[in-house]
Amino acid sequence: MKVIKFGGSSLASSQQLQKVLAIVEADQKRKYVIVSAPGKRFDGDTKVTDLLIQYARQTIHHQDTQAVTAAIIDRYAEIGHGFNVPEAQLTPIFETIRNLPKQSYADNTYLMAAFKAHGERLNAQLVAAVFQQSGLNARYLDPKDAGMVVTDVPDDAQIIKSSYDQLAKWANSEQILVIPGFFAYNRNGQICTFSRGGSDITGAIIARGVHAERYENFTDVDAIYAVNPSLVAKPAAISEMTFTEMRELSYAGFSVFHDEALIPAIEDNITVNVKNTNHPEAPGTLIQSTREPNPHYPVTGIASSSSFCSLYLRKYLLNKEVGLGRKILTILENHHISYEHMPSGIDDLTIIFDEHQLTPELEKTLVAEISTAINPDEIYFTHDYSILMLVGENMRNRVGIMSRAATALANDNIKLIMVNQGASEISIMFGVHDNDADQAVIALYKEFFD
Amino acid sequence: MKVIKFGGSSLASSQQLQKVLAIVEADQKRKYVIVSAPGKRFDGDTKVTDLLIQYARQTIHHQDTQAVTAAIIDRYAEIGHGFNVPEAQLTPIFETIRNLPKQSYADNTYLMAAFKAHGERLNAQLVAAVFQQSGLNARYLDPKDAGMVVTDVPDDAQIIKSSYDQLAKWANSEQILVIPGFFAYNRNGQICTFSRGGSDITGAIIARGVHAERYENFTDVDAIYAVNPSLVAKPAAISEMTFTEMRELSYAGFSVFHDEALIPAIEDNITVNVKNTNHPEAPGTLIQSTREPNPHYPVTGIASSSSFCSLYLRKYLLNKEVGLGRKILTILENHHISYEHMPSGIDDLTIIFDEHQLTPELEKTLVAEISTAINPDEIYFTHDYSILMLVGENMRNRVGIMSRAATALANDNIKLIMVNQGASEISIMFGVHDNDADQAVIALYKEFFD
Repeated sequence: MKVIKFGGSSLASSQQLQKVLAIVEADQKRKYVIVSAPGKRFDGDTKVTDLLIQYARQTIHHQDTQAVTAAIIDRYAEIGHGFNVPEAQLTPIFETIRNLPKQSYADNTYLMAAFKAHGERLNAQLVAAVFQQSGLNARYLDPKDAGMVVTDVPDDAQIIKSSYDQLAKWANSEQILVIPGFFAYNRNGQICTFSRGGSDITGAIIARGVHAERYENFTDVDAIYAVNPSLVAKPAAISEMTFTEMRELSYAGFSVFHDEALIPAIEDNITVNVKNTNHPEAPGTLIQSTREPNPHYPVTGIASSSSFCSLYLRKYLLNKEVGLGRKILTILENHHISYEHMPSGIDDLTIIFDEHQLTPELEKTLVAEISTAINPDEIYFTHDYSILMLVGENMRNRVGIMSRAATALANDNIKLIMVNQGASEISIMFGVHDNDADQAVIALYKEFFD
Repeated sequence: MKVIKFGGSSLASSQQLQKVLAIVEADQKRKYVIVSAPGKRFDGDTKVTDLLIQYARQTIHHQDTQAVTAAIIDRYAEIGHGFNVPEAQLTPIFETIRNLPKQSYADNTYLMAAFKAHGERLNAQLVAAVFQQSGLNARYLDPKDAGMVVTDVPDDAQIIKSSYDQLAKWANSEQILVIPGFFAYNRNGQICTFSRGGSDITGAIIARGVHAERYENFTDVDAIYAVNPSLVAKPAAISEMTFTEMRELSYAGFSVFHDEALIPAIEDNITVNVKNTNHPEAPGTLIQSTREPNPHYPVTGIASSSSFCSLYLRKYLLNKEVGLGRKILTILENHHISYEHMPSGIDDLTIIFDEHQLTPELEKTLVAEISTAINPDEIYFTHDYSILMLVGENMRNRVGIMSRAATALANDNIKLIMVNQGASEISIMFGVHDNDADQAVIALYKEFFD
């Protein structure tokens, strides 16, 4: 059995859904179909999820919702009519959209979660109807009926592990089960959504739950590329990569596949295959626990992200002070902030953060609290900070990677603010100024792939 | 005024002391003379301090101390007789040596501290007598009379800051004051010694206390070299370096000048001049707060040390876990262990320690406690770990240093286990296997100095 997940662009129109239908029909093992909400049909189009957010906001502010309701209904109608789905099956979907404001919600965060989740929920119902209409033995399966229970965080829920026992009961399904991605229900039966990349997470959870042999993740690119295609024309496609490589790359900005969505797949050692709905014959990218070594390409991928900032701290005799690091980390923990890296010199310490965790207010508070706790000679935040990551299983035990990388960057006159190699054997991390980041990625790509 | 400190080899014999005398006479500003205990006169000789340790041990174990007492007395006698110091001045010194066991000590650690300290104490008395005999206006000044009060740790005392107010009273001395290095007294009047390099520390404390214009530190090398002379023949001498450079280098194995001894000098911004007793006309090495940039030599020095070990730790999703680092550091702090560096990957963390802090027993305890606290997937200590440090103020804002260094190492087929650049702008740290360390230093020296 395979779990197969389609992203929003694969489900944006009846034309796209034709391709999805063909893909599902092409392999009998594709029994679990996870669907996103309809995405953009063309540049400048609005995703159904964004329409639903608008709808939720207008509802909260008691504004007129007629236009947005119509726009949402139109999207589902176009798809349904494209497959001649009987009106009797479409009407309940439209009614549900219209009635969303009439349901009761604990508060506005639950309202927002429920409105957003209906993009996936109704699309899964529609896709199930389309499949039936096209002669497939398919049915809609709601996350509630599937047994998916999540933590009570409306916009960032986590699966509760006991759900897997419930999901296991759906293993070896004869029918094609069409399941909405992105959301499930808390113990009180309220809708809570996953975070970014939420439908990918659902697919991985279902795959783990039913012990799928493969989790196919259909999107709109032929493969995961070794580098951001907006920086390098026609970059090398990654045919095979390990879970760890994917995690290290997505950490530093690879957005194709959110690393949280890998966790359930890793836990059950399920191979993930990223494929293209528009080009399903392409082999795509396999993500699995191990892969064949390729001595010609020590580097698998190069990522960069500017979403980091750093706190620089200088204190004379810093390295002699027992407890100094712990004091700083306790302050961070009190504010529920995790740090990424903490390179230290003799008298200096840099702490690198995911910028999204911080606000100017919070930065001020941290500087004040750390100053009180350890009385540094100098302390300040820097935001002009990009992290580049060179990742590859084949870098293990190889001599000379740092030499090649640092030389490529030096030849392009790129200043290294930070270099961190040491824990993981399969990655090297470089910190550069934001302005240098793109050029640095290109330089590294040329060195290791051209 | 200058504070001038002589190491043990400069005071090992009457012949050596002649040089010391000439150096003190050569500059009227040299009013504060800090002396070590007589050191080795030749390869295979025994330092007086080591004889005193033997003496202390024999006393503690109620063994016969006649031979060792005679050997110690001989050393002072040779120097005294070499300068025709009257027996009336020598006899009290010899008597003090013989009577050491008769004094009362709080316990054996205080006994050991007092025995060891007398190497310096009696030598300072002797040197003062020699200076007087040679016509200098000189006197012995005991740390107690100078006003130096230290914390109550018999073998690792720290100066108590209020001592500086007492020492200030000795500023602008007309007389040459001969002061023993290495020890002072706690508030109860008991002798406590400094740690390694203790006489250097005394010199720096006196220099700060009397606001000396310079602290001259006489030893047996012409200068501090850019690299360990046992690895590279005739290495480049460092004519000028900053306090920070010295600290970074001594951290990673430069033993010429212990970095703790720099602290008082830095606090009062006193230039330190390392010079050679056997070659006083050589300019030596100046250590000061700033220095002239030299664009031809971005690197000032290269150090290496094998006295590090590392704890490797792997846990899936490690970087997502708030509080994990703090938990580990709290455990270290509970055992009074400071860490050096903590490079981290996505799922991995390496903590680098000064090996001297650890025992096999303690390592087991740490592994057990950390395992309980954070349940890692993998955790182990590695001792095959040397740290190399490339240090230079001129590395600041320079592009290409990492490229040159990493390429030099790669060309010699040296595997980098760790690279840490990020906090300090004036150093790069490399972790290599112990076996590769010497070759790595040589490769880096060739790259940056040849």
